[in-house]
Amino acid sequence: MILKGIAPLIVAGPDQLSWLSGEKYRPALEASQAGAVMVPADFEFDRDERPVLLRTERPELAMALAARLFLEPPVHPGRVMEGAVVDSSALVAEGATVYPLAVVEAGAEIGEGAVIHSLAYVGPGVKIGPRTVIQPQAAVLSGVEIGADCLIQAGTVIGADGFRFVQDQEGAHVKIPQMGTVKVEDKVELGANAAVDRAFFGPTLIGRGSKIDNLVQVAHNVRMGPDCALAAQVGISGSTSLGRGCILAGQVGLADHIKLGDRVMIGAQAGVAKSIPSGEMWLGTPAGPARKAARVFASWERLPDLLKRVRALEKKMAELEAGPEEAKEE
Amino acid sequence: MILKGIAPLIVAGPDQLSWLSGEKYRPALEASQAGAVMVPADFEFDRDERPVLLRTERPELAMALAARLFLEPPVHPGRVMEGAVVDSSALVAEGATVYPLAVVEAGAEIGEGAVIHSLAYVGPGVKIGPRTVIQPQAAVLSGVEIGADCLIQAGTVIGADGFRFVQDQEGAHVKIPQMGTVKVEDKVELGANAAVDRAFFGPTLIGRGSKIDNLVQVAHNVRMGPDCALAAQVGISGSTSLGRGCILAGQVGLADHIKLGDRVMIGAQAGVAKSIPSGEMWLGTPAGPARKAARVFASWERLPDLLKRVRALEKKMAELEAGPEEAKEE
Amino acid sequence: MILKGIAPLIVAGPDQLSWLSGEKYRPALEASQAGAVMVPADFEFDRDERPVLLRTERPELAMALAARLFLEPPVHPGRVMEGAVVDSSALVAEGATVYPLAVVEAGAEIGEGAVIHSLAYVGPGVKIGPRTVIQPQAAVLSGVEIGADCLIQAGTVIGADGFRFVQDQEGAHVKIPQMGTVKVEDKVELGANAAVDRAFFGPTLIGRGSKIDNLVQVAHNVRMGPDCALAAQVGISGSTSLGRGCILAGQVGLADHIKLGDRVMIGAQAGVAKSIPSGEMWLGTPAGPARKAARVFASWERLPDLLKRVRALEKKMAELEAGPEEAKEE
Repeated sequence: MILKGIAPLIVAGPDQLSWLSGEKYRPALEASQAGAVMVPADFEFDRDERPVLLRTERPELAMALAARLFLEPPVHPGRVMEGAVVDSSALVAEGATVYPLAVVEAGAEIGEGAVIHSLAYVGPGVKIGPRTVIQPQAAVLSGVEIGADCLIQAGTVIGADGFRFVQDQEGAHVKIPQMGTVKVEDKVELGANAAVDRAFFGPTLIGRGSKIDNLVQVAHNVRMGPDCALAAQVGISGSTSLGRGCILAGQVGLADHIKLGDRVMIGAQAGVAKSIPSGEMWLGTPAGPARKAARVFASWERLPDLLKRVRALEKKMAELEAGPEEAKEE
Repeated sequence: MILKGIAPLIVAGPDQLSWLSGEKYRPALEASQAGAVMVPADFEFDRDERPVLLRTERPELAMALAARLFLEPPVHPGRVMEGAVVDSSALVAEGATVYPLAVVEAGAEIGEGAVIHSLAYVGPGVKIGPRTVIQPQAAVLSGVEIGADCLIQAGTVIGADGFRFVQDQEGAHVKIPQMGTVKVEDKVELGANAAVDRAFFGPTLIGRGSKIDNLVQVAHNVRMGPDCALAAQVGISGSTSLGRGCILAGQVGLADHIKLGDRVMIGAQAGVAKSIPSGEMWLGTPAGPARKAARVFASWERLPDLLKRVRALEKKMAELEAGPEEAKEE
Repeated sequence: MILKGIAPLIVAGPDQLSWLSGEKYRPALEASQAGAVMVPADFEFDRDERPVLLRTERPELAMALAARLFLEPPVHPGRVMEGAVVDSSALVAEGATVYPLAVVEAGAEIGEGAVIHSLAYVGPGVKIGPRTVIQPQAAVLSGVEIGADCLIQAGTVIGADGFRFVQDQEGAHVKIPQMGTVKVEDKVELGANAAVDRAFFGPTLIGRGSKIDNLVQVAHNVRMGPDCALAAQVGISGSTSLGRGCILAGQVGLADHIKLGDRVMIGAQAGVAKSIPSGEMWLGTPAGPARKAARVFASWERLPDLLKRVRALEKKMAELEAGPEEAKEE
């Protein structure tokens, strides 16, 4: 059997590899035409023919790794193409590609095998690491440093000015110059139309291996440890820090100047105003520890009923206080 | 009388058409200089001269249709213009316009009368349907299909990678390759700086006639039925589906893998974690049916008072339990 | 002593100026190597040598102003550069710069000293005021007017169509043509990847000196008074107005057709559905006056406990009602 691709159980054919994410997909497995299926190591299944079962500790991880074997890697010409606008003082390493209508400004450095797509903008003095890909219409502004093996998706802006102003006597907002930069470490991925602000001083830091989804806001002087994952539309305010492996669900907001420890998890739409110790999961707005917050959520829907019950108690109490005779007369 | 334009009641002149949205605008109508006004069929008005009243079931709908008559349709040259970067293997239909500095990659197909504005990006193998308009700085990435008569506004990205990772033993996020695409059906409109992710497998689907506002996030494998309307900054998580005619107010978030029926309505900023049957309106975070949620909202502001009332009840109860004498002694 | 730059206390060297934001930074001041430090007028400090103390009412404001003295202003060539695409009917004032691959459409006017960066788009009939800077990949669409000394950061779209549709009998959304424009007054700053919609009729207005952060949505016909500040991911719905000096924290949402007075402040993630008088601070969703809302937030976490207490009261009440004997028997 030669496997030529990878596909979910219900669409995979005899020449394709598939995987079983969990017990609840057993019926899909039974009906599947897949040639081979990666299953958990202890999975019990009594058919001994097709599909061939490949046992592995973590089928979904195996699938993520196996899928790459079947994907044809995109081929890039490995040179500055006609129609690209590259300043003569920029350094483009061997094997890097700059597509037509991409802009690379003075003093920028593009690493080996990096790809700057059409209509992407690489500002003055920017450093782009080896094999990093900058998609169309992404903007990497003046002085920003991006590590190796990163993916900056379309429309994302790295290095916008931090949002810091001081009001003068007349109430006008006087801008505090943003003199810092952004440092994006290796293996980071940013989704589409996200925004990462430069620091007031020093760097805003996106730690190694962190993954950031579409439309996320990362403010000035934020520092996030390695391997964080931020879902879409998350917003992180200025000078807040996240430890290693924090996971934020969609539309979460973090206040400024707070500190999240390692492996902190935050539920969708939560609004976090306080620092959080390592390993905790928080929910809600204002956010609190998950177990407590979940109990609060659960009590909300009983609140209208609770109001009635308290009113009933007050009535009875008034009757009791009025004395046994009157109460009985009613 | 020749009408030359359309304008709201308070600014319309004698050669302009206007409309009455509701009874509360009667004073504006009385003061209006408009030449003609579209009013509800049963509207009573005792002036018999100007403005001429045009009776119609739905004046606002009539206005939307009439306004088009007065707008000069934009004229496009109907050809690939100098300075556009179009791959030689791309097919540009007759009457389509590709403006200077627009990019159309290999194998892309641009339909009749379609318009690709300057600085827009059309990726490899993309299909753009007839009369569809792609505004400046929108990016339609590799393999995405867009139907006829769509409008993709400036800065919007269609076909970014879905945000799916599996953590390995060391906590690193391993990317699950996103092998699918996005299919945008006919008459869809997307606002500015929105993001639609490609599916893990198969297509993310934006159904016919759906309208999506600015800065909206549509994750991988979402499917939305025809005629949905999503207001600004809405976020829809992976693999969630919306039926026909769903309406989501601003900043709503939908969890992953849930299912909204037909004509579901969701109030602003709601966070929806469960599937919702057809025809229901939900509010709040976590969201619930509107009537119930509105009662919960209304009880919140009475909560501090409720705490006091319960404390008072407990005190009285303690006095009662202590027996009549002691209670009276206090 | 010659000062050559500005830096925070902990990194400033002997040839740098620093500042003291508040008493809590006293240890940093004591350890600082800064040559001179701006401190509050009444600040007491017993070292009489270095650093030299510069006394001022508001050190942070002084820092914002002083920082500019040390920053080298960017130098622009002051002309239309080769590779820019400028329509022959556009007017580019003396000293304005249009960089390569920027697009300036027919009838647009670029003011003295304005800068249109590479890959920025200036639509037909747009007016850009003197010294205003349009960053890469920003789009200023047809007919929009931008005043003097503005900064429009990368990826921001001004003049997208307002999101207004009327449903017809079949449930299809019929677009209401957006015939208006956007007027951005002087000294306005917009962050990265924000979106400002054109009005249905007349202008959407961003008042003088207002500052808008990344990923903010400003809908059609919004009017905001001078000196407003909107943090990241705020969304303002159609036809809502903000007075002078309003400050909105991150991820706030304002409903449509409401009116905020002058100097209104809104806490992060709040959802505002009602008009707010001048000078008030509101919080929460649905938002209410801050003091009241803060009390509500504080009572939430006591809600699960409150439910138990009411249950206990009900039990005791039932016992009391059942009469003294039975109650005692239990």
